[in-house]
Amino acid sequence: MSKIIVTAAITGSIHVPSMSPYLPITPDEIAEDAIKAYEAGASVVHIHARDPHTGQPSSNLDYFREILQKIKERSDLVVCTTTGGGLGMTKEQRISVVPTFKPELASFNMGSFNFALYPVADKIENYKHDWEKPYYQFTEDFVFTNTFKTMKFFLETMNETQTRPELEIYDVAMVNNAAQMIREGYLKRPIYLQFVLGILGGLPATVGNLLMLYNTAKELIGDFSWSVCAAGKDQMKLCAAALALGGNVRVGLEDSLYAEKGILAKSSADQVEKVVNIAKELSYDIASPDEARKMLGLKGLEHVSY
Amino acid sequence: MSKIIVTAAITGSIHVPSMSPYLPITPDEIAEDAIKAYEAGASVVHIHARDPHTGQPSSNLDYFREILQKIKERSDLVVCTTTGGGLGMTKEQRISVVPTFKPELASFNMGSFNFALYPVADKIENYKHDWEKPYYQFTEDFVFTNTFKTMKFFLETMNETQTRPELEIYDVAMVNNAAQMIREGYLKRPIYLQFVLGILGGLPATVGNLLMLYNTAKELIGDFSWSVCAAGKDQMKLCAAALALGGNVRVGLEDSLYAEKGILAKSSADQVEKVVNIAKELSYDIASPDEARKMLGLKGLEHVSY
Amino acid sequence: MSKIIVTAAITGSIHVPSMSPYLPITPDEIAEDAIKAYEAGASVVHIHARDPHTGQPSSNLDYFREILQKIKERSDLVVCTTTGGGLGMTKEQRISVVPTFKPELASFNMGSFNFALYPVADKIENYKHDWEKPYYQFTEDFVFTNTFKTMKFFLETMNETQTRPELEIYDVAMVNNAAQMIREGYLKRPIYLQFVLGILGGLPATVGNLLMLYNTAKELIGDFSWSVCAAGKDQMKLCAAALALGGNVRVGLEDSLYAEKGILAKSSADQVEKVVNIAKELSYDIASPDEARKMLGLKGLEHVSY
Amino acid sequence: MSKIIVTAAITGSIHVPSMSPYLPITPDEIAEDAIKAYEAGASVVHIHARDPHTGQPSSNLDYFREILQKIKERSDLVVCTTTGGGLGMTKEQRISVVPTFKPELASFNMGSFNFALYPVADKIENYKHDWEKPYYQFTEDFVFTNTFKTMKFFLETMNETQTRPELEIYDVAMVNNAAQMIREGYLKRPIYLQFVLGILGGLPATVGNLLMLYNTAKELIGDFSWSVCAAGKDQMKLCAAALALGGNVRVGLEDSLYAEKGILAKSSADQVEKVVNIAKELSYDIASPDEARKMLGLKGLEHVSY
Repeated sequence: MSKIIVTAAITGSIHVPSMSPYLPITPDEIAEDAIKAYEAGASVVHIHARDPHTGQPSSNLDYFREILQKIKERSDLVVCTTTGGGLGMTKEQRISVVPTFKPELASFNMGSFNFALYPVADKIENYKHDWEKPYYQFTEDFVFTNTFKTMKFFLETMNETQTRPELEIYDVAMVNNAAQMIREGYLKRPIYLQFVLGILGGLPATVGNLLMLYNTAKELIGDFSWSVCAAGKDQMKLCAAALALGGNVRVGLEDSLYAEKGILAKSSADQVEKVVNIAKELSYDIASPDEARKMLGLKGLEHVSY
Repeated sequence: MSKIIVTAAITGSIHVPSMSPYLPITPDEIAEDAIKAYEAGASVVHIHARDPHTGQPSSNLDYFREILQKIKERSDLVVCTTTGGGLGMTKEQRISVVPTFKPELASFNMGSFNFALYPVADKIENYKHDWEKPYYQFTEDFVFTNTFKTMKFFLETMNETQTRPELEIYDVAMVNNAAQMIREGYLKRPIYLQFVLGILGGLPATVGNLLMLYNTAKELIGDFSWSVCAAGKDQMKLCAAALALGGNVRVGLEDSLYAEKGILAKSSADQVEKVVNIAKELSYDIASPDEARKMLGLKGLEHVSY
Repeated sequence: MSKIIVTAAITGSIHVPSMSPYLPITPDEIAEDAIKAYEAGASVVHIHARDPHTGQPSSNLDYFREILQKIKERSDLVVCTTTGGGLGMTKEQRISVVPTFKPELASFNMGSFNFALYPVADKIENYKHDWEKPYYQFTEDFVFTNTFKTMKFFLETMNETQTRPELEIYDVAMVNNAAQMIREGYLKRPIYLQFVLGILGGLPATVGNLLMLYNTAKELIGDFSWSVCAAGKDQMKLCAAALALGGNVRVGLEDSLYAEKGILAKSSADQVEKVVNIAKELSYDIASPDEARKMLGLKGLEHVSY
Repeated sequence: MSKIIVTAAITGSIHVPSMSPYLPITPDEIAEDAIKAYEAGASVVHIHARDPHTGQPSSNLDYFREILQKIKERSDLVVCTTTGGGLGMTKEQRISVVPTFKPELASFNMGSFNFALYPVADKIENYKHDWEKPYYQFTEDFVFTNTFKTMKFFLETMNETQTRPELEIYDVAMVNNAAQMIREGYLKRPIYLQFVLGILGGLPATVGNLLMLYNTAKELIGDFSWSVCAAGKDQMKLCAAALALGGNVRVGLEDSLYAEKGILAKSSADQVEKVVNIAKELSYDIASPDEARKMLGLKGLEHVSY
């Protein structure tokens, strides 16, 4: 039987507390949701931190430390930390989580584009926090900046700590950017791609777009592992398509707040359960964290610094 | 919530009794499996008949009558009869099930191709019946013949009995054949396509091939309903991909004898249950027979002749 | 500089004499047009024969002999004979040109489909010959039959005479048929594919369809050489697309009777000139017959029997 | 006969004087090359300016004025001015050419991405000017920034001056960005897309990528006119593919310095001639400037301010 890896993206930085009472905010809540996802079948958790008081996305290493340690105390989960960072952060700040904690896996964004959430700003009626609406509005003028120079700097840092990059791909040319990093020797095999669909500025979440990315990667990269995540209402459909194609899947409240149409997920575990059910109906086994480590060529939990 | 139609292809003419003790043979068994599929969520059953003594595919109208009546007694299922026929049958014989029973739906094959099962011949060790091995071997020299003239004849017959055609599409150009039948006025809207993957001579069962057919149909046909079925081990994966694309699905022992890797399905209902589970995880409702009738523009059970 | 091969399909069996006074009919005319195509840059000619009195497609070996010999007297052209045959011919008759003349290259049709020309029947106002209109009408009920068994028989014959097959691909699944013949050991590398577009029953002549075939071949066959030909008004556009993709091209009166919109070609050479001009603007060199032999792995003119 | 529009991009900002003695630098040279391109068949010229002393790309409006006036004195060419700008320019500076000269057409870049030329830096042995090498090296850390807010600001400005935007598309999601601008009411029909291939950070110049963009645009935008340009050695091949698809084409020294393999173009006209030859072999007529105005819905030369 083939194994597939389920990743849970626990809280992310796209949603705001006003959107769901279930969005985990404090290190405790984030770690707790990670463990629930683990119990439901996830073997990798993708971790962002938030300010425990305001819920605002944060790159404070203390919050990260607390989350990572709590997860490690209670599971052997693979942790994939974000390196996306926040507004106004330097590239040194964004990557600092890597040299500090030496995680097994870290997100690595494969290029620059307009990461735009502004259309959401006017859809929320009652904002809980003052920062939320401007946070969305700001993205109308925002570029998520990952130049080739930044990418090389990130890869050098990750290569030093033996942290494997999870390549976040939002558009087709980013697959070629990855190939370019391989050609220039910065990016080492094995390659692990995360196709991220459904962010305005990047590709919409359609099966056709997933195929386009997958076929482009086969042509330009050759051998690789991959996963998909889709922001918004088609999260689960894109996961089903990925499973049909033999790929891995990412779910979680970072990507969608819903368990099903009109029903908020109580935690990322609700979505993990659903995608695990689909995977089982397709005769897949769910990889344990150690099996995921083998599949992705990770160094092992004994080599992290948290 | 969107509705999707689950079709169960109860016995077909591809598999032979030696392959599974669960393959339904007699009219009773076929009707019984249809009812089980119905109870599991199918709203359409695709019906072939077999000789009750040998299990060989048969176009004997008495067998069909018995099956259809038994199904009608116990359910309001939509029945889609085959018009594929068997070796050496004239086109008049193949279509005779339509004028005789005036079903709501009948399969309609959109072109000629090498429908080849011969590689299976040597994989079965113990044949139960003498006809089975030659039946497979024969297909090395077989063309499944559906000329344009035959297609027009079939469509005229179906138009007379208000039987809607389910267009069986095995390769990309068959989508254009369908468009041609629309252009020439023989094929009326609404159009219902069944993409049939995994038959040697036709397209292999891959998500890419499904997309290719789907995109071609959007370009050449415009509005249409569609479903997918895949012969062999990837049956359920292709169904998952179809659901991700918003399409309907067909399962059943005609397409695969397995419930999961290495485990024979006890009836088509085993597969219906699995695909219904996937559909529900994707927030679909399962269409009832009457809802399927509305979606496909069918005349209603009160207008059949059985 | 890259070299590309231009093939000229001199007369074929699709067009009828009523359509153009320039369609070559007699062995003399066919050989003469082959030489003109050669002088314009073609290195391969695809040869059908016709009854010199009626213009009807013929498999008479005497006509073939005369054509082949006349071509050989005046050029070192590669000749690719047809094995498509005509109505009512057995497979032995269709292939007989191969054991008789042991050509370097012969067409090899990769499956069965509705080769349909019937829509043309009513577009011609004044038919010159009695056989022409029924010839077109007949195709409404015609299957171009090439079962797997026939394909194996043809390949065995070609393998014996070291005649390389030019694989005629009319639809996507035929690429898989070719892959199947490779898997079963009948078809040997190197592989040479001719994508034939624009025949009703097969794929329409669009750039998208060409890409679909090309990508499918890359996936299922790996290394191969290829060419494209397109029946009808988009002949030259599909050749331009093939050249953009790095493929070879076939033109000729078999595929289109026109030199440009509204202007009949005086011979296949008119089209060869045009496609050679395009190729040169794209910085291609035109392969000589001997260069084409090397590129396609042919045995050489000294090993033919004519 | 169908008409196609040939655009010549006279000098651009990608190449540096060290690469070719024929790269036009001064307003005189740029205008002169525009006229040559016009005489060869171009009906649109895409105009950047350069510092006449150093050859460095410049946004000095005086240089633009001189170029535009000289072109207008000698031809009725449609001028499409750049709004791409240069390093460190504000968006107000970048767009200033539009309110100043009110051109009929202006480039409009559909999103942000890593516009990267740095791999070229080490390939040039003898640099003529000090700015050239750092200019290329700099792009390793460069994002070509076009946020949604910038795009809206540009569109408002263009809408005021009735300057039509030529939408520069470098990656697939930019097609969706365009659709978003239509949905939000900033971008008005008719839509004119320029698919720009071959820039590192954007899509590589392949026929498959062109098809991907074209198909995505058909799905997301519906009706539109389009053209293609490809940076580098496959410039002409992509133009041939575009012509095969029924699209328009852009050539010029901005995109490639070569007339053919190893031979520098003496001006953009060399490439215009080649693509016009290809277009004629494909039975296209070449649109005159006034025909191009009609095809693209432009306001007419009498409404510009230069």
